[in-house]
Amino acid sequence: MSEAQASNLAINPQRLWDALMETAKIGANEKGGIHRLTLSDEDRAVRDWFKRSCEALGCTVSIDDCGNMFARRPGRRADLDPICMGSHLDTQPTGGKFDGVLGVLAALEVMRTLHDAGFETNAPLEIVNWTNEEGARFAPAMLSSGVFAGAFTKDFAYSREDRDGKAFLAELERIGYKGSEPVGQRKIGAMFELHIEQGPILEAEGKMIGIVTGVQGMRWYEVTVRGQSAHTGATPMHLRRNALLGAARMVEAIHGVGMAHAPDAVATVGLMEVQPNSRNVVPGEVFFCVDLRHPDDAVLDRMEQQFRSALPAVLEPLGLTFEEKRIWKNPAVKFAPELIECVRKGAAKSGYGMRDMVSGAGHDAAYIARVAPTTMIFVPCEGGVSHNEAESTTLEECGAGAQVLLEAVLAYDQRFA
Amino acid sequence: MSEAQASNLAINPQRLWDALMETAKIGANEKGGIHRLTLSDEDRAVRDWFKRSCEALGCTVSIDDCGNMFARRPGRRADLDPICMGSHLDTQPTGGKFDGVLGVLAALEVMRTLHDAGFETNAPLEIVNWTNEEGARFAPAMLSSGVFAGAFTKDFAYSREDRDGKAFLAELERIGYKGSEPVGQRKIGAMFELHIEQGPILEAEGKMIGIVTGVQGMRWYEVTVRGQSAHTGATPMHLRRNALLGAARMVEAIHGVGMAHAPDAVATVGLMEVQPNSRNVVPGEVFFCVDLRHPDDAVLDRMEQQFRSALPAVLEPLGLTFEEKRIWKNPAVKFAPELIECVRKGAAKSGYGMRDMVSGAGHDAAYIARVAPTTMIFVPCEGGVSHNEAESTTLEECGAGAQVLLEAVLAYDQRFA
Repeated sequence: MSEAQASNLAINPQRLWDALMETAKIGANEKGGIHRLTLSDEDRAVRDWFKRSCEALGCTVSIDDCGNMFARRPGRRADLDPICMGSHLDTQPTGGKFDGVLGVLAALEVMRTLHDAGFETNAPLEIVNWTNEEGARFAPAMLSSGVFAGAFTKDFAYSREDRDGKAFLAELERIGYKGSEPVGQRKIGAMFELHIEQGPILEAEGKMIGIVTGVQGMRWYEVTVRGQSAHTGATPMHLRRNALLGAARMVEAIHGVGMAHAPDAVATVGLMEVQPNSRNVVPGEVFFCVDLRHPDDAVLDRMEQQFRSALPAVLEPLGLTFEEKRIWKNPAVKFAPELIECVRKGAAKSGYGMRDMVSGAGHDAAYIARVAPTTMIFVPCEGGVSHNEAESTTLEECGAGAQVLLEAVLAYDQRFA
Repeated sequence: MSEAQASNLAINPQRLWDALMETAKIGANEKGGIHRLTLSDEDRAVRDWFKRSCEALGCTVSIDDCGNMFARRPGRRADLDPICMGSHLDTQPTGGKFDGVLGVLAALEVMRTLHDAGFETNAPLEIVNWTNEEGARFAPAMLSSGVFAGAFTKDFAYSREDRDGKAFLAELERIGYKGSEPVGQRKIGAMFELHIEQGPILEAEGKMIGIVTGVQGMRWYEVTVRGQSAHTGATPMHLRRNALLGAARMVEAIHGVGMAHAPDAVATVGLMEVQPNSRNVVPGEVFFCVDLRHPDDAVLDRMEQQFRSALPAVLEPLGLTFEEKRIWKNPAVKFAPELIECVRKGAAKSGYGMRDMVSGAGHDAAYIARVAPTTMIFVPCEGGVSHNEAESTTLEECGAGAQVLLEAVLAYDQRFA
């Protein structure tokens, strides 16, 4: 097939949509979303589906010892490193149908389109499914792409435990997805990740394609506040050491840190657990997690300092003690200009409205950018809603993203002609 | 035995202590406390122990259809309603060894002392173990003494569900403690409940015995705050509807309601659950429980009004909605002067320091006061700590409480001589 023919290749939006809806049944919840935590039985089932689908196209599926999956389609030149596309198939506890899944299934749709057309690329192509992007079950997020890129050691990943004390390694082995290939050994020539925006900007501006130039810096913390649990009725207000009152004041203080650096900053307490959590007991202990993000690492340093000063200022006057630990720190990322340019060309060729943007969410691509030229493509999601069953993106938007992914990959592949 | 002999009866503090330590093994946790939720397997085990111990003294144990247990020792006059002593054997999720248990086991010690001395009272005596005093598993608290006294219907109690959706009735049947006697049918001539103070006052003043003249009014509420769960990274601060920020501000507002009416008022959020409770998701929903108490019902009305006005004032500006429901309301209680006088005499005879006080905690006695002359006796607990594994009361204090209970019961029994 000639380059002229290649320029007419079109993905099949309906086939992509059907694949999204089919996999959405794996872990489907009653609200129309997906509960498919990493390394769960549901994760195993969607991995099995993905493997079968890639093998049906003649792809070879390799799995590394962190569970990352690579489905390879050979190119004309075996000496080249593969052009990769992909994202992740795990979800939040109450996740939607598109976060991560779109990036993997759009890559599958690209592969199906090339397969149907009998089109041969110069470089090999690969679809990647990264393990534990969400971090909802095992913190931190983007765990296995992080190991792949050398941000974490494999032993660190293996030793992560969920809130029930189950370890990553044991669960990886249990679902049968600990592969034989050492993680990070594989070469990546380029990495394109299509993803829903997970924010409201594209929708608000009526743009179809986000040209993602980088990712915000982000940091995660865990805090335990300790006071004294006591009977609610018999313990006068002034004699209490109420851990929940301290935690509530920290939620307010952390909100204040985000507001002080808005609109680019965000600061959130997303998880909180109260002990003993009984109606008539003054809470003796509260555990909570903090998430701080900003596109500029220097501002993020100031946000961290403000959060850390608030802890003793807020808690000590209440007679409370605390432990605080930063469990994750990811610097701001700049993506590869040559790949960004391919995405821009692809969007222009397809006639879609576009705008440059910095991702507010973390993505596997942020780690892979450390070891290979990398970029991302965003499509809108309704109301900017994500990490929620109401997460919604149209067939047209999914199709547009897949088409731009195809065009960008083929544009990049032209350098090897 | 003559009255002169009766005046020399002394309970055995070491035997009482041994009984406390023996039952503390049932549901013992690693921190030295007890996890013995009502109608659990542990509750069944302690009920079995109690039944055996009473029957060993020749008592007849009856069980009503709410699981309340009555161990009866006949008196000289079968025409009299029994003088009752008791409390409850269930505990908080992280409860101590004395809350409730002391009142039942001190009553058992009184019975053992009378049995050993061959002493016959005029009125029959009964030990009572009330079901689900704590309310930690099935809200509201004092559920079965409440049904006994007509504060709740039996069907209401039966339909209460724990957070796992298990119903009170099913669990009562499961542990084999749904008796045949209709709840509330039984007559009570008088009710004495010995209990640890669960507050710091007696210890602070160096007094051994609290003469309890009544119980604070108390009200419980459930609140659900709803916003929109969303990605922490991609959702700017000003576009969030963060349910946890709203809940945190309500914790502060409720604390303020308590402080505004201190030192007699208390106001607490003891239980809070966050949804979806993930590190990188802005919380979309928070459920929490509120506990308000004051000795004066008119002040409590004002506290309720202040709490209820705070809900829309705090939550609406954050774009949050809420549901609020009062699930329990208990008026302030005044105990029976003739019983209070018997306790005062008993404490004086035993030579213990005493002071009058109003209970800040709810107790089964507060309901039983509606249907029979009732009062309570308090002994100190270390640091005022209760509903906690660190809850501690000495052998001497437990013994003092049991001795005053014996004296008060015998003093009251004299009216039937």
